[in-house]
Amino acid sequence: MNTQLECLPCALGSTLRLVRTDIVPPHMRVQLMRRISAFLAEADYSLSPPALGREIHRLIRAELGNPDPYREIKAHFNGLMLDHEAGFRELLTSSSDPFDTAMRLAIGGNVIDFGARYQFDVMETIRGALDVELALDDSPSLREALEAARSLLYIGDNCGEIVMDKLFLGQMAVPERRFVVRGGPIINDVTIGDALAIGIDELAEIVTTGDDSPGVVWENSSEDFRRQFHRADVVISKGQGNFEGLMDVAHPNLYFLLMTKCDLVAASIGTEKGSYVVKKGKSAEDV
Amino acid sequence: MNTQLECLPCALGSTLRLVRTDIVPPHMRVQLMRRISAFLAEADYSLSPPALGREIHRLIRAELGNPDPYREIKAHFNGLMLDHEAGFRELLTSSSDPFDTAMRLAIGGNVIDFGARYQFDVMETIRGALDVELALDDSPSLREALEAARSLLYIGDNCGEIVMDKLFLGQMAVPERRFVVRGGPIINDVTIGDALAIGIDELAEIVTTGDDSPGVVWENSSEDFRRQFHRADVVISKGQGNFEGLMDVAHPNLYFLLMTKCDLVAASIGTEKGSYVVKKGKSAEDV
Repeated sequence: MNTQLECLPCALGSTLRLVRTDIVPPHMRVQLMRRISAFLAEADYSLSPPALGREIHRLIRAELGNPDPYREIKAHFNGLMLDHEAGFRELLTSSSDPFDTAMRLAIGGNVIDFGARYQFDVMETIRGALDVELALDDSPSLREALEAARSLLYIGDNCGEIVMDKLFLGQMAVPERRFVVRGGPIINDVTIGDALAIGIDELAEIVTTGDDSPGVVWENSSEDFRRQFHRADVVISKGQGNFEGLMDVAHPNLYFLLMTKCDLVAASIGTEKGSYVVKKGKSAEDV
Repeated sequence: MNTQLECLPCALGSTLRLVRTDIVPPHMRVQLMRRISAFLAEADYSLSPPALGREIHRLIRAELGNPDPYREIKAHFNGLMLDHEAGFRELLTSSSDPFDTAMRLAIGGNVIDFGARYQFDVMETIRGALDVELALDDSPSLREALEAARSLLYIGDNCGEIVMDKLFLGQMAVPERRFVVRGGPIINDVTIGDALAIGIDELAEIVTTGDDSPGVVWENSSEDFRRQFHRADVVISKGQGNFEGLMDVAHPNLYFLLMTKCDLVAASIGTEKGSYVVKKGKSAEDV
């Protein structure tokens, strides 16, 4: 998906949300908004939104002289979700369908996104996810694919949400499991340190995209990531940024799990904004 | 009120709404969004939002080579409200308090605003205005001031809404009535042609601000407008743009009637976004 004109006010709004936190010193706020406005005036709109997001956040980090502005926000959400981990585990134990419950928690956790304009009450949304109707539900096919799989690549999205990704991974009896994080700090997306901090390495080998885009951008990803992607029997891709980057990449068993956070992505899937989606990706014959 | 950083994504979003109509030819859409992004990067944020809006829309008109891009939108809303005029008049005839009913219609009509991000269902909002609770209600003081007044300056805002302004004006037995329009086309704001088209000249003398800002900008307004403002016994100012420009200008009997359309203005008034407000302005001793 290319950057749409709709992404421009959205990108400026996302910068504004950062500017209105303590992370940006008051004397730098105007300068940062001017800098990103100027960037948007000249940017290459043929890039996908996560590829554009990479450029914007490289500029923000450079302007701030801060290699990881969202560090505290990430730690906050990881901590919040770890505080609820025992409660979530009880939910799974008492569930008649723990796979479905864990999957719903993992999609509900996708609510935690400091980059998106669409903001939610985190705990309320996650509780609501347990019995919300999925706008698109390819999970029967996902379950079947997982049962036959020897290897799984699970592409993570945001901090906080990864606690639920860990619980969901625990429901999958696939011998070889890999969990993908970003190659460098970008917004509140999960990096190696975050994945280690919540113990995902106990369930999966941690690998990176080799890129600091807020979503997989195929052209910018490492050779190693692309090899892992092609050789995995099943790929699970969490969140809107990864969907925007991978929606046109073929794989026989690629599944997108996300909450739709903007009208454009929702429309491209055929749902409303704020929908819960489990969508099978394109196979080689579709692209 | 100065332009706030919050106004930047909002201004870009407003441009986008125009870009997504047939008014902007497809081949000019990217160019227009780039032009306004570049303008915002360099703009003088000490200007008030309507003063900034003037600069943005001068650029838009120049880029499009179209002196009045919103002409058809204005005609549409004037026509829509004229179609409902007889029904509104019946409401007034059957009302136990026609002044209050007309005032509520006039505030409800302020929903018609193509520039604001906050969009509404027009007819539903206007019907709802009849019994909504006003978040701030200085209308008892307004009525009293009107009863004693010999001259009234009523500053209009948007097309469509002026049909209700006309009905409201009809409830005021002030001998000298003037209705203020913008000095040139700007967004869907009312100009001389619009006021004449709906027959406001039967009730009031039509005068202009002498400026094409989407709201009164004191410094840019004509000498004549400022004289009219100071010599009127009562001034009624419709809408958010006029409020942003006049909130700090003193007058013994200045009343703002508006629906709050953004968080910043709502907060400065002490209400929520989407509130109905009748607010007395500042007197000489307040400023």
